[in-house]
Amino acid sequence: MVKMMFKVKKVEMETDGHGIVYLRYEDARKFNINVGDRIQLSFNKKKLVGVVNLCKSAVSLNEIGVSKEVWEDGIAEKVKISLLTKPKSVKYIRKRLLGTPLKRNEIREIIFDLMENKLSSVEAAYFVASAYVQRLSFEEEEAMTRAMVDAGKTISFSKGPIVDKHCIGGVPGNRTTPIVIPIIAAAGYLFPKTSSRAITSPAGTADVMEVLCNIEYSAKDMKKIVKKVGAAMIWGGSVNLAPVDDILLKLRYPLRLDPTSFLLASILAKKKSAGSQKVLIDIPMGAKVKDPKAAKNLAHRFQYLGKRLGMEVRSVITDGFQPIGKGVGPSLEARDVITVLQGKGPKDLREKSLRLAAEIFDMVGKRNGYAFAKKILDSGKAYQKFKQIIKAQGGNPDIQAKDIEIGKYSVDVFSQVSTSYLYYDSNIISQLARLAGAPAIKGAGVELLALSGSKVKKGKKILRIITPVKDRITLIEKFLKENDPLISRNVIIETI
Amino acid sequence: MVKMMFKVKKVEMETDGHGIVYLRYEDARKFNINVGDRIQLSFNKKKLVGVVNLCKSAVSLNEIGVSKEVWEDGIAEKVKISLLTKPKSVKYIRKRLLGTPLKRNEIREIIFDLMENKLSSVEAAYFVASAYVQRLSFEEEEAMTRAMVDAGKTISFSKGPIVDKHCIGGVPGNRTTPIVIPIIAAAGYLFPKTSSRAITSPAGTADVMEVLCNIEYSAKDMKKIVKKVGAAMIWGGSVNLAPVDDILLKLRYPLRLDPTSFLLASILAKKKSAGSQKVLIDIPMGAKVKDPKAAKNLAHRFQYLGKRLGMEVRSVITDGFQPIGKGVGPSLEARDVITVLQGKGPKDLREKSLRLAAEIFDMVGKRNGYAFAKKILDSGKAYQKFKQIIKAQGGNPDIQAKDIEIGKYSVDVFSQVSTSYLYYDSNIISQLARLAGAPAIKGAGVELLALSGSKVKKGKKILRIITPVKDRITLIEKFLKENDPLISRNVIIETI
Repeated sequence: MVKMMFKVKKVEMETDGHGIVYLRYEDARKFNINVGDRIQLSFNKKKLVGVVNLCKSAVSLNEIGVSKEVWEDGIAEKVKISLLTKPKSVKYIRKRLLGTPLKRNEIREIIFDLMENKLSSVEAAYFVASAYVQRLSFEEEEAMTRAMVDAGKTISFSKGPIVDKHCIGGVPGNRTTPIVIPIIAAAGYLFPKTSSRAITSPAGTADVMEVLCNIEYSAKDMKKIVKKVGAAMIWGGSVNLAPVDDILLKLRYPLRLDPTSFLLASILAKKKSAGSQKVLIDIPMGAKVKDPKAAKNLAHRFQYLGKRLGMEVRSVITDGFQPIGKGVGPSLEARDVITVLQGKGPKDLREKSLRLAAEIFDMVGKRNGYAFAKKILDSGKAYQKFKQIIKAQGGNPDIQAKDIEIGKYSVDVFSQVSTSYLYYDSNIISQLARLAGAPAIKGAGVELLALSGSKVKKGKKILRIITPVKDRITLIEKFLKENDPLISRNVIIETI
Repeated sequence: MVKMMFKVKKVEMETDGHGIVYLRYEDARKFNINVGDRIQLSFNKKKLVGVVNLCKSAVSLNEIGVSKEVWEDGIAEKVKISLLTKPKSVKYIRKRLLGTPLKRNEIREIIFDLMENKLSSVEAAYFVASAYVQRLSFEEEEAMTRAMVDAGKTISFSKGPIVDKHCIGGVPGNRTTPIVIPIIAAAGYLFPKTSSRAITSPAGTADVMEVLCNIEYSAKDMKKIVKKVGAAMIWGGSVNLAPVDDILLKLRYPLRLDPTSFLLASILAKKKSAGSQKVLIDIPMGAKVKDPKAAKNLAHRFQYLGKRLGMEVRSVITDGFQPIGKGVGPSLEARDVITVLQGKGPKDLREKSLRLAAEIFDMVGKRNGYAFAKKILDSGKAYQKFKQIIKAQGGNPDIQAKDIEIGKYSVDVFSQVSTSYLYYDSNIISQLARLAGAPAIKGAGVELLALSGSKVKKGKKILRIITPVKDRITLIEKFLKENDPLISRNVIIETI
């Protein structure tokens, strides 16, 4: 394309990470330019790049609009524009979408271009979609994970073994991480844990920990904390470990797409970046994974990818049909965590945490892991370790469960039936907690007042929905009229 | 979501058709909002909708930015925002991407939501991608085509039969439409033809006709012209027949995606919208379609979809390995069209046009179609009809080929070899014409100076590349040093 001078209109807005150049339809046609093309803007000796978006009236003829990503480091009043060829990664994405698996370096190129915002969101979405045309091969999965690691920060420790755990999620209240970590760390193993905030669920570990301490640290500061107290519980978004994941997440969210390869790569890239050597994966069956076959398949894939990456991965399939613990929502779950660490609290949460800790002890070669974990928990050593971590992350180590504020408005739910086996509808419980305001509103959520599986008489109080926002009570009551938080049928088809 | 008041910042820019609401990351988190969510803005009694985009600094806390699509019909300084559930079509797109074919009404919902800009470009891209997970079933294809028709304008005529033709493209210089149409219309059949502008090729029929007359008319005006002179050749973009196609095209362009179902639906929806009853499809083998099997398969699919839509479709597989005619580029092709209509001009273009006209005559029940077409062309009746059409579309009917201006700079290319069978590389010819400036620069393009298949001695002039822009000569010369416009090998593996 022959270079042409254009006037520049600065658009006071950021777009999608990649810069955008807005062009009038007429100008675009005149210069054979189309939506999604890349334009280079040259002035003095600088060169900037943006992706073309066409508009009817917002810019004049012979004028371009440029989004903030393009102009924020300075731009001239007039620039020369020229058409760039697309990055090679666009060709690779096309190739994969049309059915051909990619080579390592091709996958790598896509991941790095994503990281550097060189792909438009439509182009990047086609990469996500290609995982449904054909799942990624083991080679592709490994290449993607390694590229995700290399495109971000990494941490390493001189002393090992470095351990980690991850739960694929979907179970309300299932806050084992802040209990397992102090148990393991109290035994002297390093545990550099990054966690996510909830996107579609009522709370992620990061949301819960945020009730108690700071969770936003750089990778460097995270390493310092781990070296000092043996563990850290940090929000993954702040440490820049495998940050490509956030870009992919934005593309997957609109359709709630969760291709398995992306899930595997996302999780293990973060673990690898944090220097972890032994990783336990908790796969609750009945939540995101519905049946034993799918759960086992996922378990094996985690282990295999881990092996290719030089990590030991163990997967446990757990009961994900029912909520775990008493509270659902950041503050309520933080209360449960503290009470369990103090030797009390919901039995199911305590038991699951001990079992997971036992598996990790087994992985590092400790015998009788369950008894060992129980001893650490019951002796109060785990709670002491927890307080050290909270303090290291700028929180109040002496906070008690009752000090954690929760909403003052509530709706109580009573059982409509007498049943010999109470069974919550996890999905409805999550929705209730979200309606109450979780995870954004820390003190909002649901309290489960009866034990799942217990005998319950009609009229017994089984749930309390809690919120600090009075307006939400109406929404909750309306929702409860249309939705039953209990499942009366037996949904378990097969006992594993 | 509980409603919250936000300040409004008008962003002076259009985006992708669908309006965008820009929100600070912190606010989004506070209210459990994510990228791609839909937000409703309420003020007074008005309600507006936009898709969420997050930003770091371009809006303040408790402020939203709104793109021009959202605010252009008026907005208050402060608005209440609330989260909307996604349109049902998003769920259908997800379903299809994950492998389940859709029902008629689900496809219909997607097409109408696309048309009404209710889908973000990422969501819409996933719909395009789903065609690669599994091709559309015949039911889906039909539903999509019918929805495309219903979402736009339609034309109907009281008198029939209404005929039409379409070429799937890929052959440089292949400008048969403006020759076939006057032949058929001269025999009294109505021919309401819409054509496209080139996107990646050197010229579309619309680009060529634009050299001679106006091509932008509404559906209503198009109908008037057809009723008056029996035919019209209009740019499809202006008539609003099956306009969803333009939206899909924008999504397909970045990766040059061309799923067959979309191709079929796009073409036949436009024909159906224009009231056509009998449609001839030209499938040049060797261009976009590479082999006989693929060509035949496509031919059958066109016919079958046509049948489901109540149209008679005939497909012809033509030789698409070589360019057709002498000129490549809008003005040069317009010259060829006029000379052929005047009884002279490139023999291959004349012959192919007569053959296609013969097929159409055969479809409407005229016997000896070829002889009939030849008679109409040779008698000058087709040329008279052409002049009527040009006049009706506001052009100068008496324009002669030599009056059509072409660029004054040129590069001549001489054969480097002696060959008994000259064979052009169509792809290189197209690229040369694009480099010269076609289709945006009408007078730019390529002249083929030797007949494909002819015996040529080394040193014979075989090509002239023409442009009105002197700067482009350097680009063309550089390109010619690296690329050979002739194919010396015999590329035809099999003779059909």
